[in-house]
Amino acid sequence: MKLKVYADRMSQPSRAILIFCKVNGIDFEEIHIELSKRQQLSPEFQAINPFKKVPAIVDGRFNLFESHAILIYIASAFPGVADHWYPADVSRKAKIHAVLDWHHLNLRRGAAGFVLNTVLAPLLGLPLNKEAAAEAEKVLTSSLSTIENIWLKGDGQYLLGGFRPSIADLSLVCEIMQLQLLDEKEHDRILGPHKKVQTWIASTRNATKPHFDEVHNVLYKLKLRLSLKQSSQADGERKSGIKGPIISKM
Amino acid sequence: MKLKVYADRMSQPSRAILIFCKVNGIDFEEIHIELSKRQQLSPEFQAINPFKKVPAIVDGRFNLFESHAILIYIASAFPGVADHWYPADVSRKAKIHAVLDWHHLNLRRGAAGFVLNTVLAPLLGLPLNKEAAAEAEKVLTSSLSTIENIWLKGDGQYLLGGFRPSIADLSLVCEIMQLQLLDEKEHDRILGPHKKVQTWIASTRNATKPHFDEVHNVLYKLKLRLSLKQSSQADGERKSGIKGPIISKM
Repeated sequence: MKLKVYADRMSQPSRAILIFCKVNGIDFEEIHIELSKRQQLSPEFQAINPFKKVPAIVDGRFNLFESHAILIYIASAFPGVADHWYPADVSRKAKIHAVLDWHHLNLRRGAAGFVLNTVLAPLLGLPLNKEAAAEAEKVLTSSLSTIENIWLKGDGQYLLGGFRPSIADLSLVCEIMQLQLLDEKEHDRILGPHKKVQTWIASTRNATKPHFDEVHNVLYKLKLRLSLKQSSQADGERKSGIKGPIISKM
Repeated sequence: MKLKVYADRMSQPSRAILIFCKVNGIDFEEIHIELSKRQQLSPEFQAINPFKKVPAIVDGRFNLFESHAILIYIASAFPGVADHWYPADVSRKAKIHAVLDWHHLNLRRGAAGFVLNTVLAPLLGLPLNKEAAAEAEKVLTSSLSTIENIWLKGDGQYLLGGFRPSIADLSLVCEIMQLQLLDEKEHDRILGPHKKVQTWIASTRNATKPHFDEVHNVLYKLKLRLSLKQSSQADGERKSGIKGPIISKM
């Protein structure tokens, strides 16, 4: 029976797993769980993941959730995944675990909190929380500095000085990719100072092409819609002389 | 060369690693990094952990931080660690990873945030933040319910229905043990409704004795000091008729 991946491409850890499976030629079925339709709350999906979140997988009678655990499982249980993704060597593996552990309370908290409170909230019918955005921005910029100065220290193009990407590179790059939803100026303000981070994102994208862009396409399209909405709003404001919040229904 | 464990027994992930090493007969040296003296900020320690946090380990020329990564490394790299701590089986291992991943943004955030903002802040010279305490309490009680209803579902006494403890049991129980610092009433209010959690803590303590209590002794002593301070303060208040904040210097 094929591996089943329950995902919504609007979720960054879902994207990481889909790209990983595609790059490694895993024979899998993508099952779309549409978060905007709250499909993750169905009893059928709760039987797979009681936390009602994507991504999750079912492999035969085995179900699993938490994206890092899934990446490690697929890399370990499926033949043909190149060693650089999740090395057999205990010490190299340990360093990858350390990056993934760090991810949770740092980059994830910062990036997800910032994008939610600056872009996504109105699309989800939630109020924008300026204080939470400012708090998340601090965590995000400190996390980007840490990636630049600690995790990307070394000769290689990838985290931990590697010359080929690991599951940690893919997971963290997919997390950062959600910043694409910010408007151009905001995006450049946040990512601009981190040149090494930008090169590393480009390297990871390049090492996983064409799947990286194919899976991120949903994000690129939403970005385009947001920019169009923003310019037509700016246009309207110029005409009416009124400034108002961006309110959008997905 | 012996494994070096850099730890402060006041830190819950430090305690988990010390107990794990002792229970498994690992030949190691405990190097005390006293957080209250800010020894984690020394350049020598920063060369081991650039994040300036305990625990960290040095094994020969290999250094590592992040407590989950350390537990997995020791379980994998040292002979003689029983399989139940970190099973060789890929599926059982994956479920342990999922619990450990969940830990970061849930139990850790809740328990550490709550204890900091109700007990520890004055000892560290920080103001008590009631709002942060209330927020952390929500995360904490929801995490305890999740442990009770999801992770402890099954026949066994341990997480994931196990009959013997894993590194996830040890890590999560050590996290919860910091609630010992709350006064009796608060402790019972938070933990009281979670009978399965209480039994599981007792089982984990029992499976790792006498090391569990030996390593937690620093916590038990501080708890005693806090209760004495509290009763003498209450006594003083009764005599003077004045209510004031607990201010303590460690």
